[in-house]
Amino acid sequence: MKQITVLSGGHGGARFLSGLIHGIRRGTVPGVDTDAQVTVIANTADDLWMHGLKISPDLDTVMYTLGGGLDHERGWGRTQETWSIKEELETYQVPGVWFGLGDRDIATHLVRTQMLEAGYPLSQVTEALCRRWLRPAHGDGVRLIPMSDDRVETHVVIADDDEPSGRRTVHFQEYWVRLRAGVPAEMVLVVGMEQAQPAPGVIEAITEADLVILPPSNPVVSVGTILSVPGVRAAIRSTSAPVVGISPIIGGHHVRGMAEQMLASIGVASTAEAVGLHYGARSGVGVVDGWLVDESDSAALPALEGAGLRAAAVPLWMRDEETTSAIAAAAIALVS
Amino acid sequence: MKQITVLSGGHGGARFLSGLIHGIRRGTVPGVDTDAQVTVIANTADDLWMHGLKISPDLDTVMYTLGGGLDHERGWGRTQETWSIKEELETYQVPGVWFGLGDRDIATHLVRTQMLEAGYPLSQVTEALCRRWLRPAHGDGVRLIPMSDDRVETHVVIADDDEPSGRRTVHFQEYWVRLRAGVPAEMVLVVGMEQAQPAPGVIEAITEADLVILPPSNPVVSVGTILSVPGVRAAIRSTSAPVVGISPIIGGHHVRGMAEQMLASIGVASTAEAVGLHYGARSGVGVVDGWLVDESDSAALPALEGAGLRAAAVPLWMRDEETTSAIAAAAIALVS
Repeated sequence: MKQITVLSGGHGGARFLSGLIHGIRRGTVPGVDTDAQVTVIANTADDLWMHGLKISPDLDTVMYTLGGGLDHERGWGRTQETWSIKEELETYQVPGVWFGLGDRDIATHLVRTQMLEAGYPLSQVTEALCRRWLRPAHGDGVRLIPMSDDRVETHVVIADDDEPSGRRTVHFQEYWVRLRAGVPAEMVLVVGMEQAQPAPGVIEAITEADLVILPPSNPVVSVGTILSVPGVRAAIRSTSAPVVGISPIIGGHHVRGMAEQMLASIGVASTAEAVGLHYGARSGVGVVDGWLVDESDSAALPALEGAGLRAAAVPLWMRDEETTSAIAAAAIALVS
Repeated sequence: MKQITVLSGGHGGARFLSGLIHGIRRGTVPGVDTDAQVTVIANTADDLWMHGLKISPDLDTVMYTLGGGLDHERGWGRTQETWSIKEELETYQVPGVWFGLGDRDIATHLVRTQMLEAGYPLSQVTEALCRRWLRPAHGDGVRLIPMSDDRVETHVVIADDDEPSGRRTVHFQEYWVRLRAGVPAEMVLVVGMEQAQPAPGVIEAITEADLVILPPSNPVVSVGTILSVPGVRAAIRSTSAPVVGISPIIGGHHVRGMAEQMLASIGVASTAEAVGLHYGARSGVGVVDGWLVDESDSAALPALEGAGLRAAAVPLWMRDEETTSAIAAAAIALVS
């Protein structure tokens, strides 16, 4: 296999990609050429405008992770970060300081915002930023494409007794970063999705791939939003490439993030089985051919197989690049 | 006197203002009430857009200086500054890094830019920023107003053998910061000036003042541009308040900045006398009633007086707030 396409959110997807690429280059992913090209289609529905800056958290997490610039201890943002601007904005008492942008991270947003305002679409801006982050380490071997050049933003409806309606809508980032996903998400609304177009290269990356992977990213607000971009789901269903997914739920819980809260909002149980069935088999009306679950969830295998999915259970904790590349190898083996 | 209005550029004007206000509050400026209000009309023709940010160097230098936030060793920008963004922009290889913005300074520009893009005029944005910088220390006793809410930008024509015309036009900041005013300024062009309007309050601050001061700022690109805003020169000429200026040239040289280069571009000699005569007496066609020169330039007094100006020579080096408030007192005494 020469072309692998991955539909990624932020942290989980980036971590998976890091291990996948590590394994491919070292020849430990059977069936995949060591010089295979990995195309990442990243979720942009988490994007927000803050302090006049366009912030693309998932694009940046993937870019920084694969470019060696991510602060792994914090799990987001830049290494060697400073926080002068955050301090200043707090002193100016401007709203939105809860988002907590670091100075180095802001430099990325400044470059992005200025290019967008000069008229470049997000996909070209991302390509330009990746000249710094991906090219030195990966050459042309890794491509990062936003799911869409159009503005699409996930909002979450939460209860609020102070509102006449009893509910309030907050941007996804406010739900996640400010409210720490601590209140139930009654509904998830993706503003702008119906009018959005896939970014140039997205559909081709799916239809011309040798393999498509849904990594252990959030099935609702990461992979789910990418699949909702008009044309993407149809491309996934029609591509001749096998499609395999890796469960982001282990033992009934997400590893990191807020998949549980998001799954609850769409009425899907927080289990590896339910998420696999939610994606569903391509032989039916779904989007995957295979579904990899953690060894602790092996009891789910019969039900998954009964729904037309190839399924297997292996250790799914992405402890380091070695264990993660083994997960990638197991996922690929499942549909090869 | 209860209302003092000062037409200020950056460094020299801010330093003068610091001493003036110090002296007023301590009652060492005869004839001026200790609770007099000082209104600063600041030059904005040095402003530029860089990295998508609106930067107002003179407004900020005045604001930071009077608010205790200026790095006095560097002479510009913020105390406790960090430079992460500058490093990042260099790594991204974006143009304009020569301007060298610090992180804390960028926070000010982010707030300003976002408010401008939300539709607020620069004068209201400046008022909002000054709630942090001026109100705690000065209450309502100091007001800072940009000369205009309209975009006005000083450009400098320099020789360039690589250009077919043999000359090239650069933004004032490029001339000053990047080229360090190291090549002759053949011409100074102030783009947008003819269409500019004075910001709200500018004309009233001049016509309703008890005294107007032209501090030792650059007579061409600082005070000169303020005077060029349509209506300002006429207000200065018609106000019932006396108008006094302090020479930015001492012994034939500017103290700091590039007044010499700018004066050469308009054919005015770099002497305290020539600058005084360039401003001219209000009894004739000029804009000042009195002109204060350094003690080393006392030979200029007869010529200045012969041109209808009240003139005096005192030590003009602004070593600290005490010496500077003595300069302010001498200037005010000259026209009282």
